[in-house]
Amino acid sequence: MKRARVLVDGVEFAATEAPEGLRLPDGRFVRDEQVIWCPPVTPRTTFAVGLNYADHARELAFKPPTEPLVFLKGPNTFTGHRGLVTRPDDVTFMHYECELAVVIGRTARRVRQAEALDHVAGYTVANDYAFRDYLENYYRPNLRVKSRDRATPLGPWLVDAADVPDPMNLALRTTVNGKETLSGSTRDMIFGIPWLIEYLSGFMTLSPGDLILTGTPEGLANVMPGDVVITEVEQVGRLSSTIVAETL
Amino acid sequence: MKRARVLVDGVEFAATEAPEGLRLPDGRFVRDEQVIWCPPVTPRTTFAVGLNYADHARELAFKPPTEPLVFLKGPNTFTGHRGLVTRPDDVTFMHYECELAVVIGRTARRVRQAEALDHVAGYTVANDYAFRDYLENYYRPNLRVKSRDRATPLGPWLVDAADVPDPMNLALRTTVNGKETLSGSTRDMIFGIPWLIEYLSGFMTLSPGDLILTGTPEGLANVMPGDVVITEVEQVGRLSSTIVAETL
Repeated sequence: MKRARVLVDGVEFAATEAPEGLRLPDGRFVRDEQVIWCPPVTPRTTFAVGLNYADHARELAFKPPTEPLVFLKGPNTFTGHRGLVTRPDDVTFMHYECELAVVIGRTARRVRQAEALDHVAGYTVANDYAFRDYLENYYRPNLRVKSRDRATPLGPWLVDAADVPDPMNLALRTTVNGKETLSGSTRDMIFGIPWLIEYLSGFMTLSPGDLILTGTPEGLANVMPGDVVITEVEQVGRLSSTIVAETL
Repeated sequence: MKRARVLVDGVEFAATEAPEGLRLPDGRFVRDEQVIWCPPVTPRTTFAVGLNYADHARELAFKPPTEPLVFLKGPNTFTGHRGLVTRPDDVTFMHYECELAVVIGRTARRVRQAEALDHVAGYTVANDYAFRDYLENYYRPNLRVKSRDRATPLGPWLVDAADVPDPMNLALRTTVNGKETLSGSTRDMIFGIPWLIEYLSGFMTLSPGDLILTGTPEGLANVMPGDVVITEVEQVGRLSSTIVAETL
């Protein structure tokens, strides 16, 4: 099942995908154009993995990491499908990042890889925009790269784990204004989802609602106000966002 | 006023300081020994500042930073006054960090230093224990240094900002088993509280309940199971924690 959270006339509803559009809990159907999409989950803790695809690490001129590079993101950073994402006036490089996002469903502490996917509630798509000007701070990544307000679209759907039998073999694709700029597959992750869950749960507890953004493959592009960016993960969804200028 | 959150017979209460002990909302008084102390706030986003005292930066053989080194902490990391903090079996260095913690009270976006303290609800004490073995990861600090479960005692009290007229001139003190191991003052911060609020709110929004841990001065010591560690900030509180072994 595909689940979403949407605003209809300013009121928030849980919704599910139906042939007629979005089905609300009261039985009504609404069309995509009638809603404002919220992030499908409200993450408690959000983990993001840096340089988790070897081709992307090379693209940034880094050696692929030998252990995962994980950082945290705050709740201010999320927005929904079709969200407007601000390009700050003071940055030179704003890059999309097309990522499969894993939503934890069951408390995980010292979980082995073989059981790791039992702790997953489902999947969604993230676009973890990076403001790369500030990458070279000693503490990486600098908050200014990865903690801007509403700069991480998430959605449209939370897709139940049961409906994604092999999350490690999904095509990733990004288009900017309809032109393909990124093409990859989750099978090229350096650290796969079961590995990441074993690693993180080895020294801390993962709780229901925690989110793991699993990294982006090669295909950087700088985006500018007016650009429409669609990050897509096979079986999970097509997530759209539009870049807007800070100074209107 | 000093406010706390405590469990009495397993039920959580807001409490305030009174000569008789802790005053509960129903008018009852309870003694310190009758309660379990919870963190006085449930942070939405927690910012922690690394190397914010020049003496501590020297102690770790780092150059003092020229801009603040800020990282995020997740909600799994907190525990209350008198909490038991686990020393993992696989670490060699577990260091306390005695810190003044700032609780945001009013939304802050692009706030100037002169108005910054108007956005503060109050102050508490943090002991931001570091498991320093893992410091040298490319992404700093590695989650294993700063994101362990219940390894950041916070409390005992949230002290109203009005009761701390000069937060930039408070004595800091730490004892281990009653012996003083750290002595400093918040006036030696490299980046003061108004500066940090201006900086962070310059590129993201600070929300009520957000927490800023402002860093620790010089005075490292490795702590071992059985040690009782008290981190104290003048006018704000004395926060105790006891180290326990991972394997009992």
